[in-house]
Amino acid sequence: MKKVLFATTALVFSAGIAAAEVSVGGDGRMGVVYNGSDWNFSSRIRVSFTASGTTDGGLEFGGSVRADQASAATSGTAASVYISGAFGKLSMGDVVGAPEALFGDLPEVGYTDLDGAGLKNVGTLGGRNNMGANEIPYLTGDNGGNVLGNTTTTGSSTSSGPNLLYTGTFGAFSVAASMSDGKTGSVDQSQEYALAAAYTFGNYTVGAGYEVVDPVGGGANWKQAMISGVAQFGNTSVKAYYADGSGDNNLDKGYGIGATSVFGATSVMAYVNYAKDSAGAEGTAYGLGAAYDLGGGASIVGGVADSDIAGTDTQADLGVKFSF
Amino acid sequence: MKKVLFATTALVFSAGIAAAEVSVGGDGRMGVVYNGSDWNFSSRIRVSFTASGTTDGGLEFGGSVRADQASAATSGTAASVYISGAFGKLSMGDVVGAPEALFGDLPEVGYTDLDGAGLKNVGTLGGRNNMGANEIPYLTGDNGGNVLGNTTTTGSSTSSGPNLLYTGTFGAFSVAASMSDGKTGSVDQSQEYALAAAYTFGNYTVGAGYEVVDPVGGGANWKQAMISGVAQFGNTSVKAYYADGSGDNNLDKGYGIGATSVFGATSVMAYVNYAKDSAGAEGTAYGLGAAYDLGGGASIVGGVADSDIAGTDTQADLGVKFSF
Amino acid sequence: MKKVLFATTALVFSAGIAAAEVSVGGDGRMGVVYNGSDWNFSSRIRVSFTASGTTDGGLEFGGSVRADQASAATSGTAASVYISGAFGKLSMGDVVGAPEALFGDLPEVGYTDLDGAGLKNVGTLGGRNNMGANEIPYLTGDNGGNVLGNTTTTGSSTSSGPNLLYTGTFGAFSVAASMSDGKTGSVDQSQEYALAAAYTFGNYTVGAGYEVVDPVGGGANWKQAMISGVAQFGNTSVKAYYADGSGDNNLDKGYGIGATSVFGATSVMAYVNYAKDSAGAEGTAYGLGAAYDLGGGASIVGGVADSDIAGTDTQADLGVKFSF
Repeated sequence: MKKVLFATTALVFSAGIAAAEVSVGGDGRMGVVYNGSDWNFSSRIRVSFTASGTTDGGLEFGGSVRADQASAATSGTAASVYISGAFGKLSMGDVVGAPEALFGDLPEVGYTDLDGAGLKNVGTLGGRNNMGANEIPYLTGDNGGNVLGNTTTTGSSTSSGPNLLYTGTFGAFSVAASMSDGKTGSVDQSQEYALAAAYTFGNYTVGAGYEVVDPVGGGANWKQAMISGVAQFGNTSVKAYYADGSGDNNLDKGYGIGATSVFGATSVMAYVNYAKDSAGAEGTAYGLGAAYDLGGGASIVGGVADSDIAGTDTQADLGVKFSF
Repeated sequence: MKKVLFATTALVFSAGIAAAEVSVGGDGRMGVVYNGSDWNFSSRIRVSFTASGTTDGGLEFGGSVRADQASAATSGTAASVYISGAFGKLSMGDVVGAPEALFGDLPEVGYTDLDGAGLKNVGTLGGRNNMGANEIPYLTGDNGGNVLGNTTTTGSSTSSGPNLLYTGTFGAFSVAASMSDGKTGSVDQSQEYALAAAYTFGNYTVGAGYEVVDPVGGGANWKQAMISGVAQFGNTSVKAYYADGSGDNNLDKGYGIGATSVFGATSVMAYVNYAKDSAGAEGTAYGLGAAYDLGGGASIVGGVADSDIAGTDTQADLGVKFSF
Repeated sequence: MKKVLFATTALVFSAGIAAAEVSVGGDGRMGVVYNGSDWNFSSRIRVSFTASGTTDGGLEFGGSVRADQASAATSGTAASVYISGAFGKLSMGDVVGAPEALFGDLPEVGYTDLDGAGLKNVGTLGGRNNMGANEIPYLTGDNGGNVLGNTTTTGSSTSSGPNLLYTGTFGAFSVAASMSDGKTGSVDQSQEYALAAAYTFGNYTVGAGYEVVDPVGGGANWKQAMISGVAQFGNTSVKAYYADGSGDNNLDKGYGIGATSVFGATSVMAYVNYAKDSAGAEGTAYGLGAAYDLGGGASIVGGVADSDIAGTDTQADLGVKFSF
């Protein structure tokens, strides 16, 4: 029902319409990518919509959704909504798991992050190009879950979303909790749970996370514990993590370290990322990149990434990145 | 052709560019849904674009299209354009049929309206969960047409749109007329026609509608007549309808009543909806809901719906709804 | 990774966020189309996002992407990004080839341009309705490449994009160069190259272009040379072209002329477009149209198109066109 002249339902929302607002932003990029044997073009533009508002009682709410460009895109991605207040922030949709919400990944290198489609001569570990390059192998959430050859947590290629994520910061402590729906429509899927906490003192943050997947197909739970630390030394930020898998988790262990330094308009970033799966296969990925801020939202960004996984040649890119 | 330095076509629209405007809005929701056996998460965000302008002669024109989030969405939905003036409003695209344009549906209950995907333990009548819950079984238009087991009006799963809808209000009288294209590309489809009129006196509106489908596969036309009334008593609005099918329409008859009351920031709404198909199968769906306006475009909304159709358990939801 | 509380990557773009801006625009249309035997409805709405910004050093950058309405649309189309300065403009994405960037097509007639989907009783030459109606048969770029029965330049139905396009204007001279990626992901595709130049003196512009496709399947290159001229006489603009194919190009030759005249709010436009393929099949398409500017971004537009290709009946349309 789009246009109703005499609708009873119109009464319901009469008071609350249209006080919230939507902002339109996005990002673009263009450049060249070396895939181990050739240089190729790569460009992308994305538009993102961020809505936000405040209730009369002071709670904040909103959401965001992204309109990607044509190739291989669905109509909207990364969609989530939230409500927040003194209690913290509750988000639902395409949200990450609790540990990733607090600790993120190691720094990206390159304007395409060099773990995407179109790469060639790239070996995989657990089905991921270069083992995911700079990504920390989280077990749950929208871009974890499937790392290192675990059967997908949903028991199928369908996402088990929406996921629910709570984050809160109380003085020096930050906490996060997340869980998946465990359903796709009315079909049972694997159930994810995760918890994480972090403590900040001066320029240091340390924290830990724990993730569990109760697989829909039965068998032992997949479990993963991780610790992470972030430190700021002058203009340099360093992040390190150690992750330990147990139960039927295909990840045996992983660890890595990354750093970003900012010198005026120039930033340099690097990472080393190691993982071993439960069958003993292991690999180390590493990357080095730089970005130069042109001002106005534009940067020149380039990077080089490689790994010691069989079949991987050096990958590189150089391009311009915009944010709107 | 996107960028043309020396285009003859550029002359054509030189005078009229860019005076119209586009506003960006949308809605979001998050909460939990009980499907008869489990509580599950459900969240959604949609962005809508509404364009409008005025010609030098005072005609208004515009359109709207919606960008839905990823799951099960196409890239744009509910797209329509219109031109309006003293003569009324002419809309084309994903528009409803004439009676629905004037009378709408019974009030929705719940933040998901409880007739959507992901429900479980829900019986169907004519292929619709809970017989469509609060929806009046219109025969034509974008969300009618297929009610109660009629073969789709297009003879296939493809929509026969765009549809054309005219609505006009002249003093106390409102009129509407609609028709479908009868084609999908160059392929013949069923042809829809509908008329409706309403008369408003004081706090009362009464009206009637008539819909016809000329099925592409031959056979008798599907016909449906309906009457509807809306009354406003203080802070309560009541809507009732009676629909009578004939010809090869699978709907024998349907009737229902719904009400919405507003007490300050709180609204309560309820409906009862009955339908019988031409083979004698019948069912009654009912729903009860409440909404509390938090201000700023946010509301807490919850509802319970059920029906006496075999296999249907009680469905419920409770969540937060945003409008941007 | 969407929400990271302690991210090292956040340092990288801290200086350059959010100075660029996004504008939302679009276009809509509604009307009726005669397909040689019937009049049918046709409506459409599109929303376009155009981002732009300026670096501290004065370079301009930006991009655009379009959100089309549901039917047969992907989530974003016509997506491209660019960076420009005194050196010219470098664009990447769904861009046209170099000659099309300078010379465009002959004027469109009708509010749907009468070469789209849903037409009936239309003969084809080289697989294009009415030989593409007003379109000049460019060999490369996003809407060339496949004209007159050439196997697609990509060797498959997959686009070989992104394409790279350079355009620059230096005094009276304009130049353009373009090339395709020659890859889809890591798969080799046909490689496109094109060059074009134009010279403007007073109200006249003359120019030439050259396009080459190196087909992925082997065999001789496809080649095409073209010259074009545009002249402005008072309120009338005339464009003409001659294109000559060689190598394994299926186009033997094509030529055409089009004109647009503006009388106050009224514009009239017409074209004649001839093509012959390498096997000797030939055809002539012609169109006549008019547009009346209603002001505020709205126009009434109608047209008639036909050709001497076997099986083609006269096509016509009449509708309203909006730009936001």
